[in-house]
This record gives sequence, C-alpha cells and structure tokens, in this order.
Amino acid sequence: MPIYLDNNATTRTDPAVVAAMLPFFTEQFGNASSAHAFGSEVAGALRQARRALQGLIGAAAEPEIVFTSGGTEAINTAILSALAVQDGREEVVTTCVEHPAVLTLLDHLEATRGLRIHRIGVDHEGRLDIDAYRRALGPRTALASVMWANNETGTLFPVVALAEMAHTVGALFHTDAVQAAGRIPIDLRATRIDMLSLSGHKLHGPKGIGALYLRKGTPFSPLIRGGPQERRRRGGTENVPAIVGLGKAAELAAAHLAHPHGAVGDLRDRLEQGVLQQCGGCTPLGDIAHRLPNTSNIAFEAIEGEAILHHLNRAGIAASLGSACASGSMEPSHVLRAMKVPPRALRGAIRLSLSRETTADEIDQVLGVLPAIIDHLRASPPS
Amino acid sequence: MPIYLDNNATTRTDPAVVAAMLPFFTEQFGNASSAHAFGSEVAGALRQARRALQGLIGAAAEPEIVFTSGGTEAINTAILSALAVQDGREEVVTTCVEHPAVLTLLDHLEATRGLRIHRIGVDHEGRLDIDAYRRALGPRTALASVMWANNETGTLFPVVALAEMAHTVGALFHTDAVQAAGRIPIDLRATRIDMLSLSGHKLHGPKGIGALYLRKGTPFSPLIRGGPQERRRRGGTENVPAIVGLGKAAELAAAHLAHPHGAVGDLRDRLEQGVLQQCGGCTPLGDIAHRLPNTSNIAFEAIEGEAILHHLNRAGIAASLGSACASGSMEPSHVLRAMKVPPRALRGAIRLSLSRETTADEIDQVLGVLPAIIDHLRASPPS
Ligand SMILES: Cc1ncc(COP(=O)(O)O)c(C=O)c1O
Ligand SMILES: Cc1ncc(COP(=O)(O)O)c(C=O)c1O
Repeated sequence: MPIYLDNNATTRTDPAVVAAMLPFFTEQFGNASSAHAFGSEVAGALRQARRALQGLIGAAAEPEIVFTSGGTEAINTAILSALAVQDGREEVVTTCVEHPAVLTLLDHLEATRGLRIHRIGVDHEGRLDIDAYRRALGPRTALASVMWANNETGTLFPVVALAEMAHTVGALFHTDAVQAAGRIPIDLRATRIDMLSLSGHKLHGPKGIGALYLRKGTPFSPLIRGGPQERRRRGGTENVPAIVGLGKAAELAAAHLAHPHGAVGDLRDRLEQGVLQQCGGCTPLGDIAHRLPNTSNIAFEAIEGEAILHHLNRAGIAASLGSACASGSMEPSHVLRAMKVPPRALRGAIRLSLSRETTADEIDQVLGVLPAIIDHLRASPPS
Repeated sequence: MPIYLDNNATTRTDPAVVAAMLPFFTEQFGNASSAHAFGSEVAGALRQARRALQGLIGAAAEPEIVFTSGGTEAINTAILSALAVQDGREEVVTTCVEHPAVLTLLDHLEATRGLRIHRIGVDHEGRLDIDAYRRALGPRTALASVMWANNETGTLFPVVALAEMAHTVGALFHTDAVQAAGRIPIDLRATRIDMLSLSGHKLHGPKGIGALYLRKGTPFSPLIRGGPQERRRRGGTENVPAIVGLGKAAELAAAHLAHPHGAVGDLRDRLEQGVLQQCGGCTPLGDIAHRLPNTSNIAFEAIEGEAILHHLNRAGIAASLGSACASGSMEPSHVLRAMKVPPRALRGAIRLSLSRETTADEIDQVLGVLPAIIDHLRASPPS
C-alpha cells in the first residue's frame, strides 16, 4: 500500500463519510424542500450536518453555517460580501502568504475596482508582522482576512487577536481556516471572528463542499443568488449527499480532536526529527513552535524537490512540492519567497502532511527510505 | 415502491453514476494536479467526463466546458461575466418565466447597479412574445438570457433563433438549459449560443455539480477566483467524484436520447390524456406542442393543488406544486401568473414530471388513483 503524506492537498474521504452519503444519491434523493417520501429525511439530515459542523467550530447557532461548494467559494463569498456591506470602505488588510483563493481575488479587485490591498509580510519563520498589520488597519478598512493556518508550512496565525484589532477600526474579520478546521480545536464563540471559511476535502469529507461561518448579525451579501436555499444566502439545490458527508466528517474530526488516538503531532515530530538527524543540510520551514500538528515542510539544500518527490513516489510515498493548490505552475512558492527562504533551500523544499489515518509504521517506512534518497541525490551530479 | 414523478425538481442519481464516482472518494482521491499514485487516474477521468458532456450538448471542444457547483452557479457566472466583459452595455433582455437563479440575480443587479432589465412576457400557452424580444434588443444590450425549457410547464423556447437575434445587436446570448440538457437533443455547434448552463442532478447525475458551456472565443470573467483549475475560469479543488458522475450521467443520457427505450414522451402523453379523459375541469398548461417530453402541468379547477399532492403522497406518488425550485415560499408561481392562468385554475395546478426511469406500469398506477382523488376532493367541502 502506498503511503499518503499529502493531506494538505486533499484527504481521503473517510469510508464512514461515504457510507453516510450513499442513501442520499439513490434513495433519499429528493430536494430538501420536497414534501414527499423521496425527500422526507433530507431536511433532518441537513439539520444534523449543520449541527455537527457547528459543533466542530464552536458556532453559537445553526444559521451561522452557510454551505458552499468548497473553500474557494466560501472565501470569495466572504471577501466580496464584506466589500459590498462595508460601503465607503475601500481597503483590505491581508497577508503575503494567503492561499490563491484570497490573493487572486484581491489582485483582481485591486486591478479592476481600485481597492487598496495591504499585504502584510512575514519573517523567516513565517510569522506575521503584527505591528505592520496594526498600522495597516484604519477607518477605511472594510475587511481584514488572515488565514488560520498556512497550507505550505502549517504556521498558525494569531487570528483571535487579529480579529480583535480589526474590530477596533470597525473592520470585519475573515479567516481562511481551510487547513485548520478539523485539525486543531476551534471555538468561535470565544472570538470576534466574523467569518470563517472551511472545505470538506481537507478534513476527510468529500470534495465539492465547504462552509462559510457567518457570525449572527454580520451583514451579508450573497455571491450566488437564486432560490431560497440556505436562508437566501446561497442559491442552488442543496448538495445533500455532500452536506451529509461534511457533517459526518465534522463529527469524526471533533471526536478525534477530543480523544486523539495516535496523536498526529507525535508522528510528525518523529518523522521530522528522524529526517533532520539522518540527513544533513536540511531545515524545517515555518513557525516550528506554532504549527499545525500534521505538517512538516523541510528544505533540503542543493537538491531539487522535484527529484526527491520522484524518488519518494517510486518508493510508494506521496508528498508534494510547495503548495498543491497552486500547482500546475512551476513558479517557486509565494509563501517560501515571502519568508525569504534562500533560493538554494527553496528549490529543495518538500511538504510532508500527515492525517489521523497516518500510522507509526508508515512513518518508519518513510524514515527507512528518505535519507537514502537524499544521499543518492546528493551523490549524483545534477542533470 | 413509491412512484417518483418529480423529476423536474431533481432526479435519482443513476446507480451506474454512483458506481463510477465511488473509487474517487477513497482510492483515487488525489487532486487532479497531484503527481502521485493517489491522483494518477484523476486527470484522465476528468478529461473523459468533459468529453462526455461535450458529446451530450455538441460542444466543439473540451475547453468550452467549465465545471461549476450546479446550475445556479453556472447561471450567475454567465450573467455576471457577460456584464463584466460587455463594458458600456447596461441592459439585459430576459423573460418573465425564468428560474429564480436568473431572476433573483437580475432583480438584484437592477436594484443595486441600475441595470435596465427587459423581462419579456409570454402568452396563455407560455410562448414568448418574440416581437417584444426583438424590440427590446439594442446597442445597449449586454446579454440576452432565455431558458431552453421552462421548469414548470416544460415549454421550449426557440433559443437558436433568439441567439441569432441577440447577435445582430452584438449582445451575448446565454440559455439556462438546466431542464433541457439530457432530455432533448442539443447540438451547440449548429447554433450561435454563447453560453449554456446545466445541472447534474436534473439528468440523473449527482447534486452539487453543473457546467457552463462557454463558446470558444467568448470573452469571460470568472465568478469564483482562486487556483488555476478549469483553465483559471473557476477556482477551487475540482469536485472529482461529482465531475466523473456528471460525465457518466451525460454518457447515459446521450445513449438514451439516441435509442429511447420506452419513450418518455409516450408515457407522458398516456398519463396526460388519461387524466384529461377521466377528470373533468382540468387543462394542461404550457405550449403543448412544444414541450419537454417528460413534463405535464395540469390545472384542476376549483381544487387546491396542495390537497391533490397530499392524497397522491399518501398513495405513494410524488409530484409537485408549481416549481420545486422556488418552493418554501407559498406564493403562486410567477410562471403561471405570467401566463395569466386564471386564479381558480392556478391554485389547482400540479406538475407531473417523468424520467427515463418511469415505467408504463407506474403510469397505470397513477391513472388508477388520481381520478378518484380528484372526485373525492371535488365532493368534499373546502376546509
Ligand atoms: C489555505 C487554503 N485555503 C483555501 C483553499 C481552497 O480550498 P478548495 O480548493 O477546497 O476550494 C486551500 C486548498 O485548496 C487551502 O489550503
Ligand atoms: C430551469 C432551471 N434553472 C436553474 C435551476 C437551478 O439549478 P440548481 O438548483 O441545480 O442550481 C433549476 C432547478 O433547480 C431549474 O429548473
């Protein structure tokens, strides 16, 4: 069996999630609003899924959850909504290391609507320049949007404090929690975060489903308008199987966070420390003390990450280079560049991202082959 | 087994579609762009799905298909894109009988951006006022958007001719083919339709997936921005299982259209004629000669549609009242009002919508109970 260490790109849908979804394809396939037998259980199943997701992130009430088609849609909705409802405010404060779902949209708005975007930098460890963030906030700030956890390094941002700061100038605060949700405890009740985006397929739920958390009372403008679904905040026939699947995934993730079986963080540390001990000339990237427990991004000096991945792949180990979300492009990661990782380390960075399904045995297998791959590549002349 | 005659609301996902999707949840669960074993078949599967959909609607090239999360997203994308790329043109021509996915968005744009919306009316049979359509087109028209088939009555609109007319004034033409795709032959090569929207769950595919056809060369502006997916026209991790499912559904629908087993139109006619013969005081609504083959909307005078549905439901027959898409609201259907259906008939209208899965035996069962229900309700005093 191949070993999957690319969980920040996407996760395996949990078989229990697939099982929960199945009846809603061919049996309870009616619309949520259908009054007949084919949809009689649908409304209840949607409610249960909403409650499970509410539980995972500590949302105070069911209507705070708006189901979307994924993380990117939730993020686009949050940003465009904030700009629509904060009329007269034309600035956004964000970071240099956000996902393209944030940055591509903001680049577009800057170019076409003349919005002013403040992209706050990070230091060598990927930590946000909090003073610069505070200085960028002002009476013209419509929205501050900062990711909870970075997809490439796992670095966690102090979003609870950042949300407080945003509120002092009357800005709304959104966080892209696509990598954080289901992996670290989140309790929104204790925060002033107005909007949070998450995505099903990063937490062993299905692809094509996500959610926007929208704090009660937060003014809102929909991205997708149509029928009365989702309390008129997101038109379109509800994706019932996927919503049910996301609910089940939320339930499983919450249970795992409450009672971690074989703590992911311990396995990640064992992997990372093993690699650092056995391979010279490599450095873990990111804010090592404040990271997602599942992520290790290691820069191997003077080797091409592509070559490492190729050999890992042949050994049945799946990992990734930079961000899988921005892949397809061969540009060096904007995250690692923002961290000013030196070019010779940057080209040799690979991301190993674990999940609750990763086993100690798999980690030992990786430790059994990775050092040899590195030695081999260092010994071969670059092609 | 209950009988399902609500296929214009949503259809059963074909078990072959579910089977095609399954491996992509727990085995080939990688991203399309992943270079490793967990995603090795994904890119090929997406390509095959795109080709199948291309085949169903006669798109000339694969890149003309942009996958979305459903019909509503495709429609919102088409309308907003047309307005973004047709700068300086501030008018939209549409009809009074479009789905809320069109009308709710246009109402919003009219109210907030001062767009001028021409909503062309229909006659008693639901046929478009073509002269009014032509007169409304002009040098300020950015877009004409007319549905291919109406969801409530099945009435077909002459979209091929309407697209030609739109082009004479330099407007783009979009058609909401959510009810038409998979039910009637569509060959876009032979038309000047620029954009077409469709939805998986109306053609025995999964919910949460749809597509926008975008003719080669049509200028475009994305609704959801993020990663490089869908040639940068729709950000977000691809919903691989659902895209594969939509591809399979397109393949099955195309095969069925080529060789209809027990032609749906014959069964619909048998049902409708049987009802008309056995029940007095009822009229089929819509353009009877130019309709989807699966739809029958019948207005029973002096009875409440709700009551008919309730009794049908107890007899194990699922149908619907007005449009299931706009349900949740108790307002009388905007489609039937636009047709000036007299109030006493309008309140007693029910929609029976068949699918390729409907059997002759089921139709006979419906004919065995519906007339008695109508007699019973006519005999009882209104409550
Ligand atoms: C941090 C982050 N934000 C947003 C996204 C976008 O989520 P999705 O692809 O599910 O739309 C991703 C991953 O793809 C991500 O890692
Ligand atoms: C004609 C028509 N257009 C658009 C839609 C919206 O499609 P979806 O709900 O899949 O987004 C529907 C049905 O829901 C429809 O019948």
